[in-house]
Amino acid sequence: MATQEKTVSTSSDDSKGNGAPPLVKRRGLEGVVALDSELSDIDGQKGQLLYRGYDIRDLAENTTFEEVAHLLWKGHLPTRAELDALHEQLQAERALPATTLEMLKQVPDDANPMAVLRTIVSALAFVDDEADEMSPEANYRKALRIASRMPTILAAYDRLRKGQDPMAPLANVSTAYDFLYMLNGEEPGEAAERTFDACLVLHAEHGLNASTFTGRVIGSTLSDMYSAIPGAIGALKGPLHGGANIEVRKMLMEIDASGQSPAAYVKQKLANKERVMGFGHRVYKVLDPRATILSDMLEELSREKGEMQWYDISHEIMETMEAEKGLAANVDFFSASIYHMLGIDIDLYTPIFALSRVTGWTAHLLEQWSDNRLIRPRAEYVGPRNLTATPIDER
Amino acid sequence: MATQEKTVSTSSDDSKGNGAPPLVKRRGLEGVVALDSELSDIDGQKGQLLYRGYDIRDLAENTTFEEVAHLLWKGHLPTRAELDALHEQLQAERALPATTLEMLKQVPDDANPMAVLRTIVSALAFVDDEADEMSPEANYRKALRIASRMPTILAAYDRLRKGQDPMAPLANVSTAYDFLYMLNGEEPGEAAERTFDACLVLHAEHGLNASTFTGRVIGSTLSDMYSAIPGAIGALKGPLHGGANIEVRKMLMEIDASGQSPAAYVKQKLANKERVMGFGHRVYKVLDPRATILSDMLEELSREKGEMQWYDISHEIMETMEAEKGLAANVDFFSASIYHMLGIDIDLYTPIFALSRVTGWTAHLLEQWSDNRLIRPRAEYVGPRNLTATPIDER
Repeated sequence: MATQEKTVSTSSDDSKGNGAPPLVKRRGLEGVVALDSELSDIDGQKGQLLYRGYDIRDLAENTTFEEVAHLLWKGHLPTRAELDALHEQLQAERALPATTLEMLKQVPDDANPMAVLRTIVSALAFVDDEADEMSPEANYRKALRIASRMPTILAAYDRLRKGQDPMAPLANVSTAYDFLYMLNGEEPGEAAERTFDACLVLHAEHGLNASTFTGRVIGSTLSDMYSAIPGAIGALKGPLHGGANIEVRKMLMEIDASGQSPAAYVKQKLANKERVMGFGHRVYKVLDPRATILSDMLEELSREKGEMQWYDISHEIMETMEAEKGLAANVDFFSASIYHMLGIDIDLYTPIFALSRVTGWTAHLLEQWSDNRLIRPRAEYVGPRNLTATPIDER
Repeated sequence: MATQEKTVSTSSDDSKGNGAPPLVKRRGLEGVVALDSELSDIDGQKGQLLYRGYDIRDLAENTTFEEVAHLLWKGHLPTRAELDALHEQLQAERALPATTLEMLKQVPDDANPMAVLRTIVSALAFVDDEADEMSPEANYRKALRIASRMPTILAAYDRLRKGQDPMAPLANVSTAYDFLYMLNGEEPGEAAERTFDACLVLHAEHGLNASTFTGRVIGSTLSDMYSAIPGAIGALKGPLHGGANIEVRKMLMEIDASGQSPAAYVKQKLANKERVMGFGHRVYKVLDPRATILSDMLEELSREKGEMQWYDISHEIMETMEAEKGLAANVDFFSASIYHMLGIDIDLYTPIFALSRVTGWTAHLLEQWSDNRLIRPRAEYVGPRNLTATPIDER
């Protein structure tokens, strides 16, 4: 092999353009502001999250998921007429085209539901005549279409893998109601609908997290929504991102099965330098405001069902983590128990996150395309140089 | 609606962690070095591209696509035994599982081939028992599996949409040979194989371009390869990225149909302040080294076929752009004509780019996971604050 000398220089990408500012190096892009956004603001010191200027607590108490979707997509909370129109449009798109359902039926029963969502959303391009049409109007229609169909895909897949027939969506109901109905085959109670709707509100948008960022990078090449959303779903699937709520549920089940007290379990984990899932957040230095709301909802749901077990375990873990490490619970910590109380299978927790966050993803894409600029950083080359290819039989 | 006050602060994401360096703002991440990489180095002043220390001209002349894939994945050019083993592994994976082929048959004839590739690669997760297994060994096997099957997917889809039966892959041939065979249903000539193989070598890797970056962002959440590669395919689909070679071909056909001289056409475009596709590059200030090699290959292929038309038009455009704007041709400018001379349909040009670049994408993922760090920048919030949700009937 030829001589290797280690030197350092920068490499870039295939994009066209001119002029370059001086290089700055930030591994993992930590603390780099990549773009302006009007979609959400997070104040970690105050524990505050705003969607387009509205506090998340205000939205969770006083608006529905569809109102929030309208806020994210259109920039303002809807009037009654606007909301009625949005409901109508979402319902008109909810059912899956026959060929999409046919494809879904071919997916094996043991597939990862996030892989199913990723694949079938990608395949929705095949049944959309305006898949590659990039006008703002067409992109808005696609945002609605994708957001409307994701609950149907997930509910249908869950029934198919259990040997049940998929349910057709209902008319004149909310996304939350329709999803729970299509999933369970029966109309949900008022408390279940209200709780699930609030979960959708709370997960809809959260700045430039890894999945939203993925969507915007893909969108910034002027690729289409059926390319960007499966990419975002793929990123959300990761255990360092949306996959965390599944890990929380596994921990709760482990504590329950072990017979240990939650406090003892947590202390032992910490003594072993193992991670306790659902705690700590880069931005929130106080309690994640979404966690506070979810904790209240879990308490209400638990009292209604007369089953306080998971609420009690959760709070003992929370108090122990607070006392031992000074860490507060994050959004994943309580959503896990709420979904469990609603009778939802554990591997659907992250896909449900996606059903909600798709509103944020698509709103970010509409924002990206309103003033597009290719997003791409550089890598620093740290490999060898000046090698020459020796003929293969002399290597 | 409530009062709006415009202020600026930063928002972040859902990831966990502690400690934050001071913020730096770079729109589109221009000039931000996000990570170290040993995969490729680009010197725009010298017009030089290295894969792991080897000059691209050296590799295009003296190695094959499979040798380059081994170099990218394993870090060194293979010995004869290593290359034989790699060929065997690639061939063992090349055929599509029956259920994948069944899904492909349900795709409509008029689908965008990039959407097909994106969807079916995503669906390969369903037929891979180790789809979510994240050991380095499993990830390497998946890199091979995906790279091996992408040519089969693309060739099979092209035949299906033309009403032809998909061809089974051959044994003991190169990726280039097998793809051309599966696409056309007949064994390719030596010149076609050699030219196509060199095209695959030239497109395999190019730093942290938008598709590679997309793959690494998805991978950085510890999501899996079947999530990251469809995301990268989605990004490559964009006209600001891999979609450019299609635009070049459209321009050549337009010139041919117009009866104008290429020089007159270009001057008119420039006078109208319209863009001439296939020129200029952020990094290369001199001729893109890949363009030089492709120009020579196009000349050779054109002489062999006795059809100099596209070569001549291309060079007249090139000379005009050089004289008028001082801009050099980039990699997309010549690949378009080569694929046309090889009898390949225009909408397969970008997917062919993907068949090659998947080696770079997967090599970047293996590198990412060898020392993972979540990749996510921030957004600066530039929207309103202090809004409160008025009851819907009062809006």
